[in-house]
Amino acid sequence: MSLHIRVVTPIIPTGLTQASDFEGILGPEDRLSYVEIGKGAASIETELDEILSAPDTVAKIIEAEAEGVDAVVIDCMGDPGLRPARECVEIPVLGPCETTMNLACILGHRYSVLAVAANMRVRFENQARIYGAWDKYASTRSVDVPVLELDCESDLLKEKLFEQAILALENDGADTLIIGCTGMVGLAQSLQEKLRDAGWFVPVIDPIPITVKIAKALVETGISHSKAAYPNPEKKLKSGRGYPEFESFLK
Amino acid sequence: MSLHIRVVTPIIPTGLTQASDFEGILGPEDRLSYVEIGKGAASIETELDEILSAPDTVAKIIEAEAEGVDAVVIDCMGDPGLRPARECVEIPVLGPCETTMNLACILGHRYSVLAVAANMRVRFENQARIYGAWDKYASTRSVDVPVLELDCESDLLKEKLFEQAILALENDGADTLIIGCTGMVGLAQSLQEKLRDAGWFVPVIDPIPITVKIAKALVETGISHSKAAYPNPEKKLKSGRGYPEFESFLK
Amino acid sequence: MSLHIRVVTPIIPTGLTQASDFEGILGPEDRLSYVEIGKGAASIETELDEILSAPDTVAKIIEAEAEGVDAVVIDCMGDPGLRPARECVEIPVLGPCETTMNLACILGHRYSVLAVAANMRVRFENQARIYGAWDKYASTRSVDVPVLELDCESDLLKEKLFEQAILALENDGADTLIIGCTGMVGLAQSLQEKLRDAGWFVPVIDPIPITVKIAKALVETGISHSKAAYPNPEKKLKSGRGYPEFESFLK
Amino acid sequence: MSLHIRVVTPIIPTGLTQASDFEGILGPEDRLSYVEIGKGAASIETELDEILSAPDTVAKIIEAEAEGVDAVVIDCMGDPGLRPARECVEIPVLGPCETTMNLACILGHRYSVLAVAANMRVRFENQARIYGAWDKYASTRSVDVPVLELDCESDLLKEKLFEQAILALENDGADTLIIGCTGMVGLAQSLQEKLRDAGWFVPVIDPIPITVKIAKALVETGISHSKAAYPNPEKKLKSGRGYPEFESFLK
Amino acid sequence: MSLHIRVVTPIIPTGLTQASDFEGILGPEDRLSYVEIGKGAASIETELDEILSAPDTVAKIIEAEAEGVDAVVIDCMGDPGLRPARECVEIPVLGPCETTMNLACILGHRYSVLAVAANMRVRFENQARIYGAWDKYASTRSVDVPVLELDCESDLLKEKLFEQAILALENDGADTLIIGCTGMVGLAQSLQEKLRDAGWFVPVIDPIPITVKIAKALVETGISHSKAAYPNPEKKLKSGRGYPEFESFLK
Amino acid sequence: MSLHIRVVTPIIPTGLTQASDFEGILGPEDRLSYVEIGKGAASIETELDEILSAPDTVAKIIEAEAEGVDAVVIDCMGDPGLRPARECVEIPVLGPCETTMNLACILGHRYSVLAVAANMRVRFENQARIYGAWDKYASTRSVDVPVLELDCESDLLKEKLFEQAILALENDGADTLIIGCTGMVGLAQSLQEKLRDAGWFVPVIDPIPITVKIAKALVETGISHSKAAYPNPEKKLKSGRGYPEFESFLK
Repeated sequence: MSLHIRVVTPIIPTGLTQASDFEGILGPEDRLSYVEIGKGAASIETELDEILSAPDTVAKIIEAEAEGVDAVVIDCMGDPGLRPARECVEIPVLGPCETTMNLACILGHRYSVLAVAANMRVRFENQARIYGAWDKYASTRSVDVPVLELDCESDLLKEKLFEQAILALENDGADTLIIGCTGMVGLAQSLQEKLRDAGWFVPVIDPIPITVKIAKALVETGISHSKAAYPNPEKKLKSGRGYPEFESFLK
Repeated sequence: MSLHIRVVTPIIPTGLTQASDFEGILGPEDRLSYVEIGKGAASIETELDEILSAPDTVAKIIEAEAEGVDAVVIDCMGDPGLRPARECVEIPVLGPCETTMNLACILGHRYSVLAVAANMRVRFENQARIYGAWDKYASTRSVDVPVLELDCESDLLKEKLFEQAILALENDGADTLIIGCTGMVGLAQSLQEKLRDAGWFVPVIDPIPITVKIAKALVETGISHSKAAYPNPEKKLKSGRGYPEFESFLK
Repeated sequence: MSLHIRVVTPIIPTGLTQASDFEGILGPEDRLSYVEIGKGAASIETELDEILSAPDTVAKIIEAEAEGVDAVVIDCMGDPGLRPARECVEIPVLGPCETTMNLACILGHRYSVLAVAANMRVRFENQARIYGAWDKYASTRSVDVPVLELDCESDLLKEKLFEQAILALENDGADTLIIGCTGMVGLAQSLQEKLRDAGWFVPVIDPIPITVKIAKALVETGISHSKAAYPNPEKKLKSGRGYPEFESFLK
Repeated sequence: MSLHIRVVTPIIPTGLTQASDFEGILGPEDRLSYVEIGKGAASIETELDEILSAPDTVAKIIEAEAEGVDAVVIDCMGDPGLRPARECVEIPVLGPCETTMNLACILGHRYSVLAVAANMRVRFENQARIYGAWDKYASTRSVDVPVLELDCESDLLKEKLFEQAILALENDGADTLIIGCTGMVGLAQSLQEKLRDAGWFVPVIDPIPITVKIAKALVETGISHSKAAYPNPEKKLKSGRGYPEFESFLK
Repeated sequence: MSLHIRVVTPIIPTGLTQASDFEGILGPEDRLSYVEIGKGAASIETELDEILSAPDTVAKIIEAEAEGVDAVVIDCMGDPGLRPARECVEIPVLGPCETTMNLACILGHRYSVLAVAANMRVRFENQARIYGAWDKYASTRSVDVPVLELDCESDLLKEKLFEQAILALENDGADTLIIGCTGMVGLAQSLQEKLRDAGWFVPVIDPIPITVKIAKALVETGISHSKAAYPNPEKKLKSGRGYPEFESFLK
Repeated sequence: MSLHIRVVTPIIPTGLTQASDFEGILGPEDRLSYVEIGKGAASIETELDEILSAPDTVAKIIEAEAEGVDAVVIDCMGDPGLRPARECVEIPVLGPCETTMNLACILGHRYSVLAVAANMRVRFENQARIYGAWDKYASTRSVDVPVLELDCESDLLKEKLFEQAILALENDGADTLIIGCTGMVGLAQSLQEKLRDAGWFVPVIDPIPITVKIAKALVETGISHSKAAYPNPEKKLKSGRGYPEFESFLK
């Protein structure tokens, strides 16, 4: 069964994200496409960024369904637009934060998120609460690097990640780790190995690849999010929603 | 001490909300002004509506602070834009849902929300979880009337509210009630009296008046939301946020 | 609308509390009166103190209602007598602990209480549990000064408060602070400023002023505690309650 | 090892409680004595009753320790005075509500309390929260009989208990039951048998006998409540506590 | 990347499970093998069954790793042997209950389990608690058919499933459903369609196919369960474990 | 009333456990017998050990009931076989972990477990969750000694226990302690005294003696675990359970 998964990156083009980031996640029989949004923030670091990027993210997800895409993954650990997008479409829409937090509940006893900035703790804790993943949440630890300065080749970044990982494991009781920003492409595997060398055999979850694969698994088994939890927005009786792009798809 | 509180109604003008809705909440020594937004949904009934209305709601709150307003109340039980607005300003910003859920925790043992539509249950439950008001949440009950068809003079609406209130009290263990839509102006008091006639001496909270008064109390005592929980968004290094109106106020 | 709020200080007169402590909380159009109790403890530092002071505190609250007072605030973070008083009267009765813990849930993500003594931690934690304010509780930190030795002018006390505040913010994840003893009059504002100078823009809640103002707001909006949660005690069939002062008001 | 356990009944003498209620709980080698209080309520049905009875209950417990009693059980499911009494003495003090709720956690998956009045639900829920017994709490069901009219020989009362038990088991998911008033002496066993005849093999806990036996077990194993959780009240520097009977025992 | 996943059915051969049950879950490039155990129960309906089947289930999982299998899925919603097996091996071992409960947290707001027998409620609730999936658990509903009498072609079984599904959705607030027994092969899809015809667009999760696919995704991304949460059993110093088959693999 | 309690030690004979360990727990009028199992692990240190020892532990408990024993206590803080044993018999079966965790909820505000090995933390936390004892759980601290090397006379072990106890009290907020391995016979009392000398008046619970005494109390009051929570396994229709010893007692 060949299928098409769309990654929607909820930021405007800055060069941070590249098509090559997603190469090889799916095999040659499937298709993985990716788009950035046209209006919104250049990176998602605050709640403000999330709501500025959310409308066009949802529009891109509606477009994806209209184009026949089978499932969508939002490319940001803030999961901006996840819940309204699920109202608007029937194909599976996954956010990497919701997906990996619940995956971490399967893999271990307590998980920590390795974030780019300390101020993300509050938001990750709120997300864990509404995602049903709070009971196994240990902590958020931060490398304190602005998203737009992330250099995934940098030894300094790798070292900081390792330091924060050790603090999470030794001080916070974590035994499972989630990379807390989808901009930290490819760092999970090397961190997992480095930790193993240090005697810690713990999973380090790279959010996007596993979320894409779970999206594929959902399509293959014919399951999507519950429309009883995310009901379709109806057409407004009066002045509508002020965004023509949303109005057209409503009944 | 004379102060100025702004109500921001996060919907585009439809005639549903009127200045008279807020008359008399504050005394003559204080000023209560109100604005609607210019771009967004005509009513807030879904998560989609919330994100479509949030950007301009936040813009209006930034404007309010710039104009010297002392505190802002968002006029919708979905509290759209509450959290990003708090990032952007230092004056108190209150959402009626967060405020009344925590007030209900003070007044009784368990509270129910009387909503306009059944599909709001999921969102009210998520809000209760992140607002620290979950432990006393009993239920959401709905009158099943679209917001834009609400007629606060209608006997049918009053009867439906009473019926749902009785179900919440008798079946769900609630002893405190919150009117779940700020469009149901002025219905709390009559419901409270009708319940009292039926032997139930329970508070029925009308969200906007009490939220405005608590905003005033915060201003008078020099307290606002925590900037450690809602830190200022910094200026983006690269392409910014795509919304010039937000860019200008950042440092 | 002019109203009358009574502060009931649940300790016997020792000079610790003075009428001047409450001056200026309400404007000149309203009346704020205050009484101490005649029988009970000289300060509230233990559960023993609370139950010894509770009966006369409740009697004073019953008297207040009989005199036409509009609302009562109990002047102690242990909230002694709060729940039985609510059974006995219909006017709003607020405890500063219950009120400020739920207010803290509105203002931030996690709050800490700055107590006078370490042994109050257990009681504040139990109160947070039954007040519906547990999910956002971070910690109790203590200055370790007996209530009757509190000197609110003392630089040492101010320094200790600042130290404990920093520990709560840095080590416990708090972003919102509550002064944990109503005997620490006037210290909230200076602590808030000192923290701001140190880079922490966090609210420091002074319990009595805001609780009095919220009591006023409840009166103005016609809301009180739920009598379904706090039902009236009925007259005993047989020997009664052994306290004539309580017997007389029951039906 | 012969020991002496004191039951303190926190009500003034009305004839409701009799020495014969406690006969046979301990064997002939041990001693079980019982006292009622001199000042307080005639029955415990409200929070008001609890605080009116608490001071003399604590005084009686202090006396018991001074007389060389080995442990005390408070004879009321409201556990009035439990926490302040533990501050004042080192011998074990047990409340039947705290003890049986935690025992129910051992015996089954979810427990219900069979109360005398519906208004006790709120208090049992608050107790379950602070006793660490909330996660297995199913419900409170009530027979709706005032304490002072309880007739433990009455077939009507037995029938009502059975009805409420069945509702708890069938509707609330309970599998373990607690008799919710120590005035319902001797009804647990017959209810357990009647339920067994109806196909429900569930424990029905009679609060006082098992609490007395656990008190004995604590004495025999040299364990008491934690003084780190219930620290001794110190002598007040100034005016004390206004109750000479409490002042004398403090250091 | 071609991989080999082993399904271990933790029951002795009875004809209930057949290789054809698993056909088509993986594509032709991968291998899915399956084994039953040699010693244990004929079906898993009680905690007794679980512990009787667990030792040989773990032995079969150790064998699988030794044979070079890439991941194991336990074919039973009781997840017998899941935790000890994870101690013994490093390849991913997934239980369908843990996996689908956490998947349900991703797909909706509240989930119910459709079980074969009512007595499974207690165990599903305990599992939800330790799997970090409690906050979104709505209920367990049962069709009341013994596992060994399950006939997946039976119209009666399909009708019972539909009835229980409707009760979960309408009465328990569920919006996502999990088939609660891996013996109910192939019933999820028809139930999902039938519910859709009845106006309920909700996911019905068939446990084994999605769990196998998630196991595959874990292998492909190089993630397994945390050995910090499930550390290797060490060789016993003295008499060992009494099971030679376990002794040999320990270091 | 003379009764017979059986301690079942869920390990194979190694000399670690001796009849003298249980002497004096019950008085001369009662009988305390003890057996070890014939097939299983030499010590319980992992989940693997638990499931290997569980089947024969359950068999021994079934035998005990058949012999007329009045109650059974499992002699291990892992409580192996507790839940399936309760399915198989009607006499009370107690596990020391479930019993002492709930007892600790009665004695203090927060408890810590002093374990033999750090890897037991995960299991104690899972047990606290399903035993309804999570809300008062503070931490697990470990002396890091393999069970089979425990020397209860050793000063080093006593010193390590004291050190970990102090860490639990000072760093984790615990005020009540549980000895986390039944192999640490007789160490509770000396630790309690040593802590008292250091100014900590906290209970240190020795698991087996108090659990035996509570078992006795249950027998005397005619209460056992709920068969609605632990229903009898029925005879299998087809191939049974593969263990003849279990088959014979089923109906």
